[in-house]
Amino acid sequence: MLYDTVWKGARLATMAGDGAGDGAGNGIGALDHGVIAAKDGVIVYAGPSANAPALDAKQVIDCEGRWITPGLIDCHTHLIHGGDRAAEFEMRLDGASYEEIARSGGGIVSTMRATRAASEDDLVATALPRLDALIAEGATTVEVKSGYGLDAATEIRMLRAARRLGTERAVSIATTFLGAHALPPEYAEDADGYIALLCDEVLPQVAALGLADAVDAFCEGIGFSVEQTERMFAAAARHGLPVKLHAEQLSNLHGAALAARHGALSADHLEHLDEAGIAAMAASGTVATLLPGAYYFVRETKLPPVAALRAAGVRIALATDCNPGTSPLTSLLLTMNMGATLFRLTVGECLAGVTRNAARALGLSDRGTLEAGKRCDLAIWDVERPAELIYRMGFNPLHARIWSGQ
Amino acid sequence: MLYDTVWKGARLATMAGDGAGDGAGNGIGALDHGVIAAKDGVIVYAGPSANAPALDAKQVIDCEGRWITPGLIDCHTHLIHGGDRAAEFEMRLDGASYEEIARSGGGIVSTMRATRAASEDDLVATALPRLDALIAEGATTVEVKSGYGLDAATEIRMLRAARRLGTERAVSIATTFLGAHALPPEYAEDADGYIALLCDEVLPQVAALGLADAVDAFCEGIGFSVEQTERMFAAAARHGLPVKLHAEQLSNLHGAALAARHGALSADHLEHLDEAGIAAMAASGTVATLLPGAYYFVRETKLPPVAALRAAGVRIALATDCNPGTSPLTSLLLTMNMGATLFRLTVGECLAGVTRNAARALGLSDRGTLEAGKRCDLAIWDVERPAELIYRMGFNPLHARIWSGQ
Ligand SMILES: [Zn+2]
Ligand SMILES: [Zn+2]
Repeated sequence: MLYDTVWKGARLATMAGDGAGDGAGNGIGALDHGVIAAKDGVIVYAGPSANAPALDAKQVIDCEGRWITPGLIDCHTHLIHGGDRAAEFEMRLDGASYEEIARSGGGIVSTMRATRAASEDDLVATALPRLDALIAEGATTVEVKSGYGLDAATEIRMLRAARRLGTERAVSIATTFLGAHALPPEYAEDADGYIALLCDEVLPQVAALGLADAVDAFCEGIGFSVEQTERMFAAAARHGLPVKLHAEQLSNLHGAALAARHGALSADHLEHLDEAGIAAMAASGTVATLLPGAYYFVRETKLPPVAALRAAGVRIALATDCNPGTSPLTSLLLTMNMGATLFRLTVGECLAGVTRNAARALGLSDRGTLEAGKRCDLAIWDVERPAELIYRMGFNPLHARIWSGQ
Repeated sequence: MLYDTVWKGARLATMAGDGAGDGAGNGIGALDHGVIAAKDGVIVYAGPSANAPALDAKQVIDCEGRWITPGLIDCHTHLIHGGDRAAEFEMRLDGASYEEIARSGGGIVSTMRATRAASEDDLVATALPRLDALIAEGATTVEVKSGYGLDAATEIRMLRAARRLGTERAVSIATTFLGAHALPPEYAEDADGYIALLCDEVLPQVAALGLADAVDAFCEGIGFSVEQTERMFAAAARHGLPVKLHAEQLSNLHGAALAARHGALSADHLEHLDEAGIAAMAASGTVATLLPGAYYFVRETKLPPVAALRAAGVRIALATDCNPGTSPLTSLLLTMNMGATLFRLTVGECLAGVTRNAARALGLSDRGTLEAGKRCDLAIWDVERPAELIYRMGFNPLHARIWSGQ
């Protein structure tokens, strides 16, 4: 076969298999003398150079011993939004109470207002620098949620803007409808009415337009109840859309178990997750997406139950949760460092969290590992060992990024 | 006067004065319509455009409303070193004990060995990417310590390499002799003998070669005693070199008070600093250099006494402490975010910490603010308010960096 490109002289972290017990590589499928061959944007061979087929290719790239990982995947972001909340951040450091901040127009409502006021072009233009920061560190797939419009027109505009990010840059965008993110002022006393609006009017439009790849909700005392979340999930099912959930961030409403009952791709945050929720997630194969940036930024002290998740065999993903209120974070490398430093994830778990398991959290079985048949999305790193990607803070050793073979 | 360059249409955070109570700018000397004029690498005017002199210049740059701060200053780094400690980081996440890590050759001794084995060229080459990361975020002055050689030849080689960084890049390097960083194996049972070597042989050579701008020591149970530190300080005084100190990081040996008695430029770390130490620092004008990266990376829980430092009027600097063992951090923006998030410093305090007060921690009165007579070291930012520099994580809004007027 004549390949389009062959990358030779590489060390590979294939992330193939379930990553357990492959010795020195710490569960990352490490190969010291590796080669990757691709054709039409798909990996045809990834493995030891000793076993490699004949390497006829239009282009042969010598990686000079550099490490290659799958392109990184950020599986939970709110990248599209109007405005920022730096002023609120500053007020809080100056000692302002949450009440004072709310009175001065802060909080999620301020982001909703700024997002409603923004055109689709504005939303794309302000998100691009954030996306570029992720891409500069090797991201090849980024999930983007709606959820700051909280009305039909703005939710749809956010999702259109998200889709457009994928045409403006060489990156895959997975979109998630998160109408049930917060209660808009128009429905302040009528959460059930708002959920009905989402289920009966907004989601059907979103689905008809093909704007969402999944449906998410914020199941929390200050968000939506289990019953309201269940209605959203039922509506998603009617449109054939998979679900995921913001669950157990501030309290334990047993949202993760609910998500698992609905076969959710992922349950996210999970600081207050209990044993029953873990067991349910393990049984359903729901990914636990941990968001250490939010944990750090809001100075949370309740840790997610990492050891119990690990023991139960629940797959763990890591994501930036990039959002203006609780995690203005645009670095998956720093996210991994936080996963290790704050949550005590291992190097292998951190890498799986932004590759193999992040792909699974998005229901994307065509990426996240270096294996024949997968998309050729690669990150090539100037490091001597993969642990360096997690150990350093504020340092980007990306040598090259390949998206869809290029 | 014909200026070399005028930057107009800028918003300025001059950081001039002591930064207290100038209203909206939160103590940062904020100016909404500002201009800077420079000649021969020095600021001739920095202030309101309304009061600006005639702006004849060889070059006029319209900043289009961008914010200008002084170039950032990292006043505490161990940027020069051999090797890294990513493998040790990985082992620890895998559950290895400190004993196991030490047995496998980890810890500061591993960095000492790698540094002794490195040539001057190696030391420069491996430090440059770290320096470049700092520069990419607007750093114009970086302090670099010795302290991984722990013998005359290697300490001198480290300082030569540090000086060379300043010729390889457009940046000012301030060097610090930190021979008293740890006890080398050759002196395992003879700390006094090692201090005598440093005072009687190594420092005199370093001073004669003009390789050090200051002298530092690690005053700690696992480092050097107050008495040994005092001998180092006395030797520094004999060579006319100012002193600074790693103090009160793991315990309270009253090192900060000792440093203050010797008129130290700064005492650094300070998690275990007590009221007497604070009072002594306030009286001597010694800067408190806080290192939130190390606090975060080693999962310290004892906070430095920020409120008491603030109340006593001690100036606070922030630095990366970039080092392979406890703070592999090469971002002053992230350092500021950590200062705010972990230590609850205000936006103004964070900015002063990497500009005005960092300059003072290095004894450099010619920089750190935007004022006539200061070096023209500038960072120009694509932000709407300075708080954005601290609020975001893993995002670099630097538009341009000016060092010495260029
Ligand atoms: Zn979220
Ligand atoms: Zn240090």
